[in-house]
This record gives sequence, structure tokens and C-alpha cells, in this order.
Amino acid sequence: MTAFHDRPVFPRGFRCASRNAGLKPDAKDLALFASDVDAAAAAVFTRNHFPGAPVIVGREIIQRGRLRGIVVNSKVSNVATGELGLSNVRRMAAAAAAELGTVPDHVLVSSTGVIGVPLPIDLIERGIRGIAAELQDNPLVGAEGIMTTDRHPKALSTSVGGTRITWVAKGSGMIEPNMATMLVYIFTDAAFHATALDHMLRAAVDVSFNMLSVDSDTSTSDTCAILANGLAGNVDERRFTDALIAGCTRMTEILARDGEGATRMIRASVRGALSTYEARRVAKSLVNSPLVKTMVAGADPNVGRLLMAVGKCFDCTISPSKTDAWINGHAVVAGGQRLDFEDAIVRSTLSSEVVDLEVSLGVGDGQARAYGCDLTAGYVEENAAYYSS
Amino acid sequence: MTAFHDRPVFPRGFRCASRNAGLKPDAKDLALFASDVDAAAAAVFTRNHFPGAPVIVGREIIQRGRLRGIVVNSKVSNVATGELGLSNVRRMAAAAAAELGTVPDHVLVSSTGVIGVPLPIDLIERGIRGIAAELQDNPLVGAEGIMTTDRHPKALSTSVGGTRITWVAKGSGMIEPNMATMLVYIFTDAAFHATALDHMLRAAVDVSFNMLSVDSDTSTSDTCAILANGLAGNVDERRFTDALIAGCTRMTEILARDGEGATRMIRASVRGALSTYEARRVAKSLVNSPLVKTMVAGADPNVGRLLMAVGKCFDCTISPSKTDAWINGHAVVAGGQRLDFEDAIVRSTLSSEVVDLEVSLGVGDGQARAYGCDLTAGYVEENAAYYSS
Repeated sequence: MTAFHDRPVFPRGFRCASRNAGLKPDAKDLALFASDVDAAAAAVFTRNHFPGAPVIVGREIIQRGRLRGIVVNSKVSNVATGELGLSNVRRMAAAAAAELGTVPDHVLVSSTGVIGVPLPIDLIERGIRGIAAELQDNPLVGAEGIMTTDRHPKALSTSVGGTRITWVAKGSGMIEPNMATMLVYIFTDAAFHATALDHMLRAAVDVSFNMLSVDSDTSTSDTCAILANGLAGNVDERRFTDALIAGCTRMTEILARDGEGATRMIRASVRGALSTYEARRVAKSLVNSPLVKTMVAGADPNVGRLLMAVGKCFDCTISPSKTDAWINGHAVVAGGQRLDFEDAIVRSTLSSEVVDLEVSLGVGDGQARAYGCDLTAGYVEENAAYYSS
Repeated sequence: MTAFHDRPVFPRGFRCASRNAGLKPDAKDLALFASDVDAAAAAVFTRNHFPGAPVIVGREIIQRGRLRGIVVNSKVSNVATGELGLSNVRRMAAAAAAELGTVPDHVLVSSTGVIGVPLPIDLIERGIRGIAAELQDNPLVGAEGIMTTDRHPKALSTSVGGTRITWVAKGSGMIEPNMATMLVYIFTDAAFHATALDHMLRAAVDVSFNMLSVDSDTSTSDTCAILANGLAGNVDERRFTDALIAGCTRMTEILARDGEGATRMIRASVRGALSTYEARRVAKSLVNSPLVKTMVAGADPNVGRLLMAVGKCFDCTISPSKTDAWINGHAVVAGGQRLDFEDAIVRSTLSSEVVDLEVSLGVGDGQARAYGCDLTAGYVEENAAYYSS
């Protein structure tokens, strides 16, 4: 059981700063994360065929396995912007590198916001100038600079042996990551080689962020990076990995709960599937179904929709007579048939902050858990006018 | 170009009736469709792993390729109801067969509505008694009896040579059919063998109902059946197939436009894909994307979302620099980059009843068209309390 600090703190040698650079009217729109020394680094990025310019450049940068800092702007994502977009990424990296006293190739750049609009690079360069003087040790300050439709800044930290791990993230819509997710930055003062980091990061992302879906749409900017500056020395790799998975999972839950318009988090656990792959497919189908999501929003125990969402996984092995389901621990389906459960009890349990859907398929040993949120009128309102607002 | 009659009429020898049998408080909830003589018949059904009892029995019945009538109730779908559900289907078929003077095996049964609730078979049997005396020739009367959340009854008809084809349908939510769709009944007085009908039906469904998605959820009751009683004799098969496809496509558009909460229909046309399969995948991705759907709802030309939805088809061949896109004929993306289009013009065109999204992928000859609708707060409201209301 991983315990998280009451207030997030950074590992040794990490700091951050954020500012309003004029991309948004008042709110912060620029953040810098810095390590005092070079850090080993790994990252995973979106699988969308239209990756943003920062993702294209980031894939090159991360090959070297070494970063000194990360610079991020919100409001404009620098996606579908061609050659100009790529050159703007390099200008942004160069400006941040000058602040950090390093080379541009040691700075990862991210941009998040509207797709297809040129990056206001002059505003950003001016915003970066002098920001190093403001670096300080509260991760939430950096988290604030990268928010888009998030309702609150997101950061977490924990200790493993003598080392610490800190997560900073943003994201609430266009979220069904694949191979990576939203913007998530993980900082540690443990010492690891870049290849070990890469391995651990992929294992952790696979069971956490890659099992999250707010709205089934996959962003063109998803980025999840980890920086290990080694200032606290070595730590047991097994314990570190467990903590990394626990923190990524917790951050996944935080992102799901803050999904656009969401009032509840949905956790779908599937067991007894033919394979892990099929368990993942069915769990994702449950959290992605608009009718399951609106059922949770309305706290309306229309449990037939669970069977519908399981049953539409056409290529999975499903045996109706072996399928059981529970809502927050209450059995609602057995052997593919709706049970005569106490409607009022299940209805009240659907109103809780976290709604646990469990399905047992009875055909194998595969299991998986997916994370999502309910679908409300708030999601629709937020996204019907996102671009113009 | 297929012309549809101003008011739908039946082919020779077909009639229908509908009643309130007491499943709903006041509205009609029971319909009977009848042919004066035995008709050759074919049908396709849902691929959901939890098919309703009427689908299980219907698959047996349709093997014989012969039907005299169809009996349908709305409000309760008879899904996830086990052995009792199957025996209730047989009782419902027997009651209708007695009215029609035929055997139960010549009656197709459908039920639509809430999943997992036992069918009120006594009410239905009582409702069927004497209904044959009310059979008359307006297809809309039958369409009225099968509505659930539909805003209006749906029927269409056309003439081909000396024969007619008539479509009667229902459906507005839980719609992303596969192999079949919602409830759609097609009647013709042309003479065809059941195997030819089956062939033509599958070809038509494949490019029409199977390309429709209101909400990406696949019903457990989807059924599309065609009855040909031959009373008008032979007709050219090619012309008949063209008319069948045209009518299925038109009915698909009617269903999309009446999607739950929808204010606009979305038509996504993809060309230049590597294969037809990939064109279908990309077209479906566009009409299924919540962010594309809310963009249309808000008439907000956030065109980067089109690229996002194309790009998240991970396993398709997508070449960003060859990708172009149009909204209602206005070019908005060229070579994977957002064009500097006239915002106000595209915005106004997004407010029209039909929004045409076109994407050219430039990597092959595959093309496809998918049908959907916008996502509004109305969808959420309707489905957050469907079960209870």
C-alpha cells in the first residue's frame, strides 16, 4: 500500500515555475520544470497519426535518455501546424535551455490546447525570459501552468526508501490515451538508467493511464515523461516500480474524476476473461459506453446496459450463462440474467463518488481494470463551444 | 435516383395495426404487420453477445425463409430473461398466429425497450386478441406501435417497375448496429426467393444501417427483416437492389436525424483510404467522436478535432501530409494542416440540418460513408433516467 504525502513535494533537485504569458487572458499558461543536474529520462507519446509538433520533436529528444527540464504552454497545442510548428518547438526549447543553462536538446517541450492554430511563439519567448528566477519547490505551481479545462491543478508525491517520486499532470477531455496519456510528468531523485526508466514507465502506464477513458477520443499531444536525477542515490527497483504503478494509478483516478463535466468516477473491473487483452477490451467497453455513463450520471440502475456493453465486444469470448455482474458490491446479474435486486439500494450506491462496476466472464483467467467517468450535460456544454471560448 | 412516395403506402397484400396493450400508460406499445399470403423472408440480427429472446427465436424462424407476419411490442425488450423469456416469445408468436390464421413458425417476434425485465406476456396476449380486425393500409400506424424514444413514427415507400417497397423502422438510441440494426421491417410485393432476398438485404444493410451510429452502443435487439409476398410478380433484380439500397440509406438518415437529443445529422464521407475496410473505420471514427459530435452541436469550427478523430484509427494507413478535409464543401484542412478558412462561413454552415464532413486520405481507392448525429445535453438527460421514467 503506497502512502502519498498530504501535500505534494518535489524530490531533491527539482523545482518549477509558472506564469501568464498572454496566451490566456489572466490564467497561467506557461510552466517550467527543472532539475538542478542532468536527469536520466524516458517518455511515451500519443499513438494518434497526427502528433503535435512537440511530440514529433520530443520523440527525437528522448532518444538520448537525458533531460534537464520541461517547458509547457497551455491554450494552443501546436498540432497540424507543419514546418512552422516544428521550428516553434525548437525556439521554445532554446528559450528554456537559456534559462536553465543547458542545451535545447535537454529540454522537453509540450503544448496543449486548441489544434490547428499557430503557436504565439513571441509571447511564449517573452514569457520564458527570466522565469528561472522564480523556480520554487511546490509542484502545484507548475501544475497550474499546464491546465486547460481541468478544474484543479494535479500533483501527487510519495517516498520510496530514501527517494521520492512526484507526479504532475493535466487532462480532462479528449482522453483515451494509447501508449501514453495527456500530459503527465514524473520526477524522482532515485538513480536509474534511462533504459530501466523506460521499462518501468511503460509497465506502469500500461495498467494506469492506458486504461483511462474520459470520452474515447485520443489526443494528438499525449505525453508522459519521467526524469530521474539520481540525487538521492539507489533504491530497490521492485519497491520503486510498485510505488510508480500506485502513483500512476492514483493519478489516473484523479484525472477520471476530473473528466470534463464528470460528477463521478467509474472503475470497471473485469475478471475471468479469456485473456488479459480481452479483459482490457471489455473493461474499456464499459467505461466508454455512453449508455453506461449516463446510467451512472442519473444514478439509474438500468443494469441491462452492462450486458449490452459487454456483449458488444464482438470479437471477445463471452458466454452469457457464465456472466455475472456487480455494482458497488451488489450482485445485479447472474448467469447472464438480471437479478431481482433491491432497486433502492443499488440506486443509492450509484450516487457515490466512485462507482465500481465488476464483471466476471467465467471463461478464463484474464483480468483488467479501466477508469472513466459519467457523461453529463456539462461535458456537452464544455465541448460545444471550447474553440470559441 | 430513387423517388419516395409523399405519404408511405404498403405494397399489395400488406397491412398493419397497433394498439396500447397496457405496457405504456397511454401510448401505443403493440404492432402487428401482416401479409395476406405467405411471403419469402430474410433477416439479419444484432451481433451483441447477449441477444434478446426474440432474436434467439427469430434466428431459428428465419431459417425457413417464410413469414406471414411480424408482431412487435415496445417498452420491454425481453433481453437477459432466460428460459422464461424464450417461452414468452413463443406465446407471443402463437397469439399473433391465431389472429393471422397461420402457424407460430411463420410469425417473427420483436420486443424493444428496457433490458432485463420480464415481458408482461398476459397483457400482450390480451392486447393481440382481436387485433386482426383492425388491420389497415397505413404503414405509419404500425410504426407508431414500435416507438420507444423516437420523436416520430418512421415509414417510407417507393415503386420499382410494377412493384413497391415499404420500410417501417424505429430507433434513436443504443445505435451502432452491426450485421443488423434497430427494428427495421421492409415489405415488398415483388417476387423473390428467400436466398436472393437474404443476399440483397445484406448488401443493402452493409452500406446503410451498418454505417449508422447514434452513440456507439450496440443494441441486444437489433433486427432488420424483409418480406416479399410476390403479389406484384417479378421485377428487375438490379433495379430492385438499387431501390432497396436507396431506401435503406434514406431510412438510415431518418434514424440518424432522430438520434436521441440530436439537432443535426452528420454524414462522414471518406475517400482515398487504403481499403474499403479502412474507409469504413475512419468514417465511423468521425461520427462516433464525442468531440466531433459536440463541435457540430455547438456549430463551432474546431476543425482540429477532425484530424484527431482520423488520427486515432491507429491501425489504419494515414499519411498526415496527404490528408485533406472539408465541412459542407468548404476546405478546412489540406496536407494535414488547418487552412486559414473564413471562420464565419464554416460556422454558419455547421448550423444546417445536415453536416457533411469529407475526408480524403490520399493513400488508396477505398471509400465509405457513415451516418450519425450531434451530441447534446438532450441525449444525456434522456438517458440518465430512461429506466425510471
